[in-house]
Amino acid sequence: MNVPELIRKKRDGKKLTIDEIGFLVSNYVNRKIPDYQFAAFLMAAYFRGMDKWETSAFTSAMLFSGKVLDLTSIPGIKVDKHSTGGVGDKTSLILAPIVAAAGVPVPMISGRGLGHTGGTLDKLEAIPGFRTDLNLTKYKQALKQHQAILIGQTKDIAPADKLIYALRDVTGTVESIPLITGSIMSKKLAEGIDGLVLDVKTGSGAFMQTLKGSINLAESLIDTAKAFNKKVMAFITDMNQPLGSYIGNWFEVYESVKVLEGEEVENLNEVTHHLSGAMIYIGGKAASLKEGISISKEMISSGKAYDKFRKIVEFQGGDFSYIKNLNKYKKSKYSLKILSPHAGYIKAIDNYEIGMSALELGAGRRTKEDLIDPKAGIIFKAKIGYRYKKNDLLAELFTDDKSIIDSVEKRILGAISFSKEKVGKPKLIKKVIT
Amino acid sequence: MNVPELIRKKRDGKKLTIDEIGFLVSNYVNRKIPDYQFAAFLMAAYFRGMDKWETSAFTSAMLFSGKVLDLTSIPGIKVDKHSTGGVGDKTSLILAPIVAAAGVPVPMISGRGLGHTGGTLDKLEAIPGFRTDLNLTKYKQALKQHQAILIGQTKDIAPADKLIYALRDVTGTVESIPLITGSIMSKKLAEGIDGLVLDVKTGSGAFMQTLKGSINLAESLIDTAKAFNKKVMAFITDMNQPLGSYIGNWFEVYESVKVLEGEEVENLNEVTHHLSGAMIYIGGKAASLKEGISISKEMISSGKAYDKFRKIVEFQGGDFSYIKNLNKYKKSKYSLKILSPHAGYIKAIDNYEIGMSALELGAGRRTKEDLIDPKAGIIFKAKIGYRYKKNDLLAELFTDDKSIIDSVEKRILGAISFSKEKVGKPKLIKKVIT
Repeated sequence: MNVPELIRKKRDGKKLTIDEIGFLVSNYVNRKIPDYQFAAFLMAAYFRGMDKWETSAFTSAMLFSGKVLDLTSIPGIKVDKHSTGGVGDKTSLILAPIVAAAGVPVPMISGRGLGHTGGTLDKLEAIPGFRTDLNLTKYKQALKQHQAILIGQTKDIAPADKLIYALRDVTGTVESIPLITGSIMSKKLAEGIDGLVLDVKTGSGAFMQTLKGSINLAESLIDTAKAFNKKVMAFITDMNQPLGSYIGNWFEVYESVKVLEGEEVENLNEVTHHLSGAMIYIGGKAASLKEGISISKEMISSGKAYDKFRKIVEFQGGDFSYIKNLNKYKKSKYSLKILSPHAGYIKAIDNYEIGMSALELGAGRRTKEDLIDPKAGIIFKAKIGYRYKKNDLLAELFTDDKSIIDSVEKRILGAISFSKEKVGKPKLIKKVIT
Repeated sequence: MNVPELIRKKRDGKKLTIDEIGFLVSNYVNRKIPDYQFAAFLMAAYFRGMDKWETSAFTSAMLFSGKVLDLTSIPGIKVDKHSTGGVGDKTSLILAPIVAAAGVPVPMISGRGLGHTGGTLDKLEAIPGFRTDLNLTKYKQALKQHQAILIGQTKDIAPADKLIYALRDVTGTVESIPLITGSIMSKKLAEGIDGLVLDVKTGSGAFMQTLKGSINLAESLIDTAKAFNKKVMAFITDMNQPLGSYIGNWFEVYESVKVLEGEEVENLNEVTHHLSGAMIYIGGKAASLKEGISISKEMISSGKAYDKFRKIVEFQGGDFSYIKNLNKYKKSKYSLKILSPHAGYIKAIDNYEIGMSALELGAGRRTKEDLIDPKAGIIFKAKIGYRYKKNDLLAELFTDDKSIIDSVEKRILGAISFSKEKVGKPKLIKKVIT
């Protein structure tokens, strides 16, 4: 096959065959196709898109560039969840023990935070001693014993994705639904899952800011999962404000534990139970999504999810005394309360700005090499549709870096718009797609 | 400036400023921007296009990546011609002496043939002793003494174009009007010209096969020439069949000399006189295109163009005895006459196939490294709209490579379509654009 010819074929809007896409990806990975040709192909794919067969072929080529875990020795339907990322999105920490407690194995391979969005690995590692770098033997052992494992991506999972993502990042080809689909699905399919629940965020704090874009991405992910014969369900959920109130790595563990202890946190509980309910349903332990949600809630009220969380934390080396006594954790040196500058309803929040504010306080990374401060973050009390009096608490900042705290306060105040008129609360679950 | 941001800006259909384009091109040339980012930019430009200001900025950045000749010391309005290339297109060899004889200096920097199209340099070098690698001192001396010079591109002319073209060639980004415009115009403007006549070919043997594409390219070239304050005129001319009857390097010198001696060659004379007439008009030696054409014809009938050709050939080291006695030239070892397989009108010729047939006989290059055989080629007698009897001569092949001659015969017969009905002759000068 001739590489410029394949580039021109995609450029001219023709469909590539499965072997043409396989040829491009595998020869890029083994360095026989240079970066500049693959960059031109990616930009042509950005403009022309890929249909569901091409996207599946692209995903498959990336998937089989590395190791695909075989979990057939683990009984049950293995189900994971993937979220496209948001601000304060800590659902994985809550739903993994819930779903495992309901008897559905959860093999979860997560990522780290970058930019305004957090990452499950960073949150888990905020628990003293918690290790996310367990090997395959431990991975299977955890699934057998506790029906859940939460680890990081190893080097041998979808190496093509790492290479291709690095190239996309510097060539303006990140924002492409088929390319995003391939990147997400190649990593998820490598886990050895049978089913997948997708949480596609939409709004100002999401990767996809428009509802239409989010639906398109969800449909592309679903089509690809189905092409690989996986059970799948997607939720489009609101990301126009943080999920729950706590943003920052330890803060998000804290709020997750509160939910596992039975506390009701606005927005967070609803989204979590939809996702875990769907996982329980897909995992064959409920006859419907509705029944799944009710089992999910029962796992909390019965204390079974909390117990499961303890088993997971202890298996992965975490010191559970910090979970039992949440106030044992070290505090940030500085804090600042942000008060409402006037009375009124909150009309909108630029949630990207809230995520970036948490990053500035030390909770996030600008580049992959940055270090994070697990205790830094924001307790964000402001919610769209609520009325605040002048000097009501909107948020509280926590950081060890005093020099940036005033500018972060300004940034957060700049991200919140008030209205004198009454404003409706945004719908949380925008759409369920199967 | 941030490269991925500039790529995304073009990708999203926004206009780049002159300094943004200059930044991209100059940093690509000095290797600070890697191939893969420039390839992504080129593909984004392929899809989004560039307006006339962006195209001029792109041309300017490529032009000033190298030396720009200063011909202000040469009196007169210096005018060159550029053709987008075709089969049997030998007009440069005829019009340079015509226009010079009319008193308009012609500083002509030409290229070599590649693929199905020939190159002026290769044709000139078919004349024994003729050198196209003269230096700048000789270049100016020739223009002063003989008002014409025909040389090849030197390394210091638009080096950015060489680099960028090589990248376009392997990344599927050749067929883009603004990129083609920048490539052509940066080289032409470097010659130090005051005016330019463009011959944009259209049809089966042209780079642009559709009339619309050819007009778009001509308009883009004209806009850019005007942005650089050059006098300019473009002709869209037919390339659905070879220009004249002789294809191949020495063969084209041969036919050019015949025209300079006063012979009338169908199609070839008409196109040549339009182009040379326009050059004489633009060069200020005629009050109109019409008068330019009549002066052009007079230069032939008076023998002045022939005398000028002799001066040019001798100045550039060519052995004029081969021109005086055209039959002195070495002949090919093998020849084959192609006869009409049946009676009928010729309806269409796939002229690309005719060009590729000449290449196969030894007259052209597949890659830049290939050697050519100057005496190889085709005398192509078939013309659209004429009636041929069975066994009439359609073409005669000349080559030193006996092994390919039968397959070339088949290729040429396959490229000619006959019709029982009478067929009109294609219009030669399709459009004049100023």
